[in-house]
Amino acid sequence: MNIAILGATGAVGQEMINQLLEQNIKVEKLRLLASAKSAGKKVPFKDQLLTVEEVNSNSFEGMDIVLGASSNAVAKQYAPDILKAKAIFIDNSSAFRLDPTVPLVVPEINGMDAKNHQGIIANPNCTTIITLMAAYGINQLSPITGIIASSYQSVSGAGIAGIDELEKQVANEDVSPHVFPYPIAYNCIPCIGSANTDGYSTEELKMENEGRKILHLPELKASCTCVRVPVKRSHSISATIITKDKLNLQTVKEAIAHSAGVVLRDDLANGVYPMPLDTSNQNLVFVGRIREDRVIENGITLFCCGDQIRKGAASNAVAIIKCL
Amino acid sequence: MNIAILGATGAVGQEMINQLLEQNIKVEKLRLLASAKSAGKKVPFKDQLLTVEEVNSNSFEGMDIVLGASSNAVAKQYAPDILKAKAIFIDNSSAFRLDPTVPLVVPEINGMDAKNHQGIIANPNCTTIITLMAAYGINQLSPITGIIASSYQSVSGAGIAGIDELEKQVANEDVSPHVFPYPIAYNCIPCIGSANTDGYSTEELKMENEGRKILHLPELKASCTCVRVPVKRSHSISATIITKDKLNLQTVKEAIAHSAGVVLRDDLANGVYPMPLDTSNQNLVFVGRIREDRVIENGITLFCCGDQIRKGAASNAVAIIKCL
Repeated sequence: MNIAILGATGAVGQEMINQLLEQNIKVEKLRLLASAKSAGKKVPFKDQLLTVEEVNSNSFEGMDIVLGASSNAVAKQYAPDILKAKAIFIDNSSAFRLDPTVPLVVPEINGMDAKNHQGIIANPNCTTIITLMAAYGINQLSPITGIIASSYQSVSGAGIAGIDELEKQVANEDVSPHVFPYPIAYNCIPCIGSANTDGYSTEELKMENEGRKILHLPELKASCTCVRVPVKRSHSISATIITKDKLNLQTVKEAIAHSAGVVLRDDLANGVYPMPLDTSNQNLVFVGRIREDRVIENGITLFCCGDQIRKGAASNAVAIIKCL
Repeated sequence: MNIAILGATGAVGQEMINQLLEQNIKVEKLRLLASAKSAGKKVPFKDQLLTVEEVNSNSFEGMDIVLGASSNAVAKQYAPDILKAKAIFIDNSSAFRLDPTVPLVVPEINGMDAKNHQGIIANPNCTTIITLMAAYGINQLSPITGIIASSYQSVSGAGIAGIDELEKQVANEDVSPHVFPYPIAYNCIPCIGSANTDGYSTEELKMENEGRKILHLPELKASCTCVRVPVKRSHSISATIITKDKLNLQTVKEAIAHSAGVVLRDDLANGVYPMPLDTSNQNLVFVGRIREDRVIENGITLFCCGDQIRKGAASNAVAIIKCL
């Protein structure tokens, strides 16, 4: 298979290169595409040293798959060229996620949807993927009607520059904020994305909009508060999952334990629970602190963590190739 | 007034000394009490240099007020001696909070309850105080029936040693955990306190148990997930507040804005929201991100921050003196 990565030098693009190897994708030719600024950089892949090329409208000819790790604007700009080249565009931006002709896929949950593509398949939002990975076992027992979630999102959600900013601020080297709106060292910033309708941010509305499409639950409601925390990698989510029917807690734990791509870490008395340090640099989502919500009838409360650059982006996107 | 501080050398005890000055309490004699380990330390107060004394059962004679900043065990040990000395014991430990003969007081919310004391008044849990400060304006519009909360609790909730551990781990000086069960630098630990009933931790049950007493709402339900984050000072809480009646959002914002001890920081589009860096080293609770919950009928979702050593402990305890 000939594969191109659009935005190959960012945090997600770099991880896509690793994931092609880790997930044993048979790559005949790998083309690394980026802006003029990054063109000429050398990147190792297997026993080769690949040169990053500046993307242009002819970059996709001869490609079977294009993995998108770019901004929305760049994804929109090059999508017509990718389709013209008859490559399949698996895009991590949010540009096409809610387009009804574009499947939005988490392979473990709705991998079959990928086959219905018309040239573009979208990779969901990172926090949405991690939360739904934790919750889809519950959804198989009884349909989810609502999700109330508060996130603990790491700085690498804003790319490599986010980690750099946190490290400099912690070391007092440069405490002025550039990537984030305020200092993130020793702080929590309860705003990710920009202000949208009804007091929610753009990031906070993704769980409902994308969750409806991934879970095939058009009535799903989700109320999120997305918060940036001084963690380098892996997002955490504290969530109450509300189902149509009252579920038995032990059955819920078993369903989560048997979910593909999920690890149960659920023994509070013995110090066993998910933590972002433990989920970094691997592809599984850890779930624990599973208990009945004290307020909401039919509510299950849990805490989950996952590497947002891997399962929240690159490893999910590369796994979509296997669904085709 | 003659005042003693029991546990005067810890993070809360030290702040109690500051608060006596900041809140203009007329102190005739201040006695600083601690364990043998801290006895002999010199602590400045006004133009004096006070010597920390080792506590014993006779330490409270002649005192009008004893401010408790000790462990539960020490509070229980010395309470009989404090009562015998006819001093009023304002205790920050959790030893007496749920005792029906002991008022549990947040001055802005139920200051009148303090007058019904029988010698002991309890200071509530830090996360509970900050959340209820944010929410009591809502409760005045319609009774709160439920609170769903996820916390972002700072390391100084575990005292000065918590800050020290975070700073050493961040600097790679000593990454092994002592104060916390796992490394806290660049991590989130979803366990504060110990495992209790039904999968909840001891810390997580305080909001319901203490909230019922403070708000005079015996049916209140609260579902909390308490998480330690790498923040030095000030706790943050993401909460959905559920009320008996449907409330108008603008009315809710006005009620919060007019609540004593609370500052409204609620303009997402212009980057105005509460953050723990902004609430540290002052006594007010900041509230923002106020919006209708998308899942829960009659739910108001908000984010609030407050200095847990001040409003969550020392400044609240010292303000209780003024209620008497």
